[in-house]
Amino acid sequence: MKISVNYSEDYQSLLTEELHNKLEATHDFIQSKTGLGSDFLGWVNWPSSTQQAFLQDIKQTAEHIRSNSDVLVVIGIGGSYLGSKAVLESLATPFQKDSQLEVIFAGQLVSGAYLKQLITYLDSKEVTLNVISKSGTTTEPAIAFRFLRQYMEARYGEEAAARIIVTTDEEKGALLSLAKEKGYKRYVVPEDIGGRYSVFTAVGLLPIAAAGHNIDQLIAGAKQAEEEFQVMDVHSNAAIKYAVIRNHLYGKGYPVEIMATFDEKLKYVQEWWKQLFGESEGKEGKGIFPASVLYSTDLHSLGQYIQDGKRMLFETFLMVEQVSDDLTVFEAEDNRDELNYLSGLTLHDFNKACHEATASAHLDGGVPQITLTMEQLDEEHIGHLLYFYMMTCAYSAYLLDINPFDQPGVEDYKRNIFKILKKPGY
Amino acid sequence: MKISVNYSEDYQSLLTEELHNKLEATHDFIQSKTGLGSDFLGWVNWPSSTQQAFLQDIKQTAEHIRSNSDVLVVIGIGGSYLGSKAVLESLATPFQKDSQLEVIFAGQLVSGAYLKQLITYLDSKEVTLNVISKSGTTTEPAIAFRFLRQYMEARYGEEAAARIIVTTDEEKGALLSLAKEKGYKRYVVPEDIGGRYSVFTAVGLLPIAAAGHNIDQLIAGAKQAEEEFQVMDVHSNAAIKYAVIRNHLYGKGYPVEIMATFDEKLKYVQEWWKQLFGESEGKEGKGIFPASVLYSTDLHSLGQYIQDGKRMLFETFLMVEQVSDDLTVFEAEDNRDELNYLSGLTLHDFNKACHEATASAHLDGGVPQITLTMEQLDEEHIGHLLYFYMMTCAYSAYLLDINPFDQPGVEDYKRNIFKILKKPGY
Repeated sequence: MKISVNYSEDYQSLLTEELHNKLEATHDFIQSKTGLGSDFLGWVNWPSSTQQAFLQDIKQTAEHIRSNSDVLVVIGIGGSYLGSKAVLESLATPFQKDSQLEVIFAGQLVSGAYLKQLITYLDSKEVTLNVISKSGTTTEPAIAFRFLRQYMEARYGEEAAARIIVTTDEEKGALLSLAKEKGYKRYVVPEDIGGRYSVFTAVGLLPIAAAGHNIDQLIAGAKQAEEEFQVMDVHSNAAIKYAVIRNHLYGKGYPVEIMATFDEKLKYVQEWWKQLFGESEGKEGKGIFPASVLYSTDLHSLGQYIQDGKRMLFETFLMVEQVSDDLTVFEAEDNRDELNYLSGLTLHDFNKACHEATASAHLDGGVPQITLTMEQLDEEHIGHLLYFYMMTCAYSAYLLDINPFDQPGVEDYKRNIFKILKKPGY
Repeated sequence: MKISVNYSEDYQSLLTEELHNKLEATHDFIQSKTGLGSDFLGWVNWPSSTQQAFLQDIKQTAEHIRSNSDVLVVIGIGGSYLGSKAVLESLATPFQKDSQLEVIFAGQLVSGAYLKQLITYLDSKEVTLNVISKSGTTTEPAIAFRFLRQYMEARYGEEAAARIIVTTDEEKGALLSLAKEKGYKRYVVPEDIGGRYSVFTAVGLLPIAAAGHNIDQLIAGAKQAEEEFQVMDVHSNAAIKYAVIRNHLYGKGYPVEIMATFDEKLKYVQEWWKQLFGESEGKEGKGIFPASVLYSTDLHSLGQYIQDGKRMLFETFLMVEQVSDDLTVFEAEDNRDELNYLSGLTLHDFNKACHEATASAHLDGGVPQITLTMEQLDEEHIGHLLYFYMMTCAYSAYLLDINPFDQPGVEDYKRNIFKILKKPGY
């Protein structure tokens, strides 16, 4: 199970001695948990150190939720939202209820209309809440939880406490204090793992398991990636290779990366990726700006810009080799739609040809290109993919001499809003 | 009903005599339909020339669809998809079935799994198809239509023809020829209106009306915008003002525009906007690269990059003054979530404060800013908004000496794919 990394130019020539040395030092920083932001390197060995007992507990809770609920409302923002959302959407089957449990997110935005309509919807369903917040005081999810907890208590009375699960700091915070008092089931947001690196913790695992997916395989895929990327090799280590190419292109005047995929199921992996890279790298006036497109849809939209617009973009295709299901174009008696030349081809064949065609066109248009290829979309491969991205992101930021693991910039708007709304203490 | 345009710097100082002259010339090009791409200026006076009989016919068809169908499958890509999608999502009520009719899109991407699962879903519903394609041979929707037409004919037999509606060229093309032969109801994609400018034609109006929305008001809003923007005034004409500021910022080294909104319902207006501007401006190595964020969600994601990353972005907030529904934060006995300072505030008040806080933080971080404000999200205001964007986009492209109305760059990948798959003639 590998992710292959292909570059439209010569990779070898990027590997100067200076870069080699920097990569080796970076590799050491990451693996030995030293270097910038090293307090937050818990994710590096998390997959291999995941205990069976922990996974078993999550699965039991998930089973319990599935047995007594129609809907799991997950309250969280940032990494407490995007990790689960990415995995759930990549495994979802459109138009069909995969599992009996519906996962709905709240608190990732602030909307009275949304919460009111959600509450009306919940009235006809059995509900469990999972509120995810390290501190318990992050404003947006705290607002959603204030309303949804009131709803649960009004509706379920004493039973509400058995229907609220809290994922929060192990030792302190408002949410922990409340959970202890009320007797909510509790899971931990590890001290040394930041939000955008948290999908393999209870933050992601509980919603993913509750939705009916296999978290053992998700962790197994991540674990395989963890082992794979322990190898310091600039050719075989995909996380290193992708980071090197990105950094090179950034230095050559390509500060915008467009992540392109032909599979709509990867749309929220794209959103998760934008947080991971944008929030890790966007500091000190530096960083590659992450954007995303879905093909073929956006070939009829941003495609024109990518082909002919300002030359400051590079494009990274994320291709999936096998699809879960497919159709074969049939020969039609009436060929006025001019499609008979495709007869006998599957739609996946078509997309692969479309990728080739687009890659070639964009390259000719002056858009440097990277192609990442994974085998298929299942829990194991998605676990592997997400770990890959986390690891490559760490290298990427370190190559820019940036701490990948903090996010000081988000404090500015928060401080401002507290001042404007006169929060005590501000 | 106005859209106000506010700039974080001094607007007056941008208005040189040279620019004035260029704007006046551009205004003439647009209003008199001369200048680059003038074959495709039909959208300029389309709202005011919309006939009652035409709208009545659309509404009758919509009523008929609602009377005999549970699902309308709309097959189209690019402008034949994004216009309807933008309007439908901006008027949708999450978790509730607004209308009895569900609108599902197909052909905006190529996926065997998606089509198969869609067809299985449709088995338990009554279905109408609306296939939208000027030529009838655009590959991606043609593929979807080949499968879905086969499904409809197998399922409904002779009745299928009464359940397929075609929106295509008035005089030629494969889809027109098929529609005439089979007796499908037909609507016209006007000769002089390009895909990304087509939302007010039958391309957008039929799906929007079928979903239960008021297309009279949508057109009325667009008509008001049409009249408003006939006035050549660099201060009061919002379409001119926004275009001038964008162009100025592009020239000052800000080639990426981030459209930010606090209302999730505007997410597909953002997608539509990205096609409109990306496809109109992204030519000859020029153009502002359009990106989008949804707040507060992305304040915990790309927010860090916007605050502190590479300084090449400007941010345009699209704010909505009134919301359709809201909640007021209540005072809680247990204030450990620290939210009592918000008690008595609505969530919309919170978002407004969040906007102020974010705008101020990002400005301090070196991100030039434009704020567009509209009154509310209903058919009339959305019609007004979309026309505003179309008009301002035309000015924007002309200021870069670009033809806004063609899209030569998308031909490259199409030619390539035909060669790769050996389409006859390539």
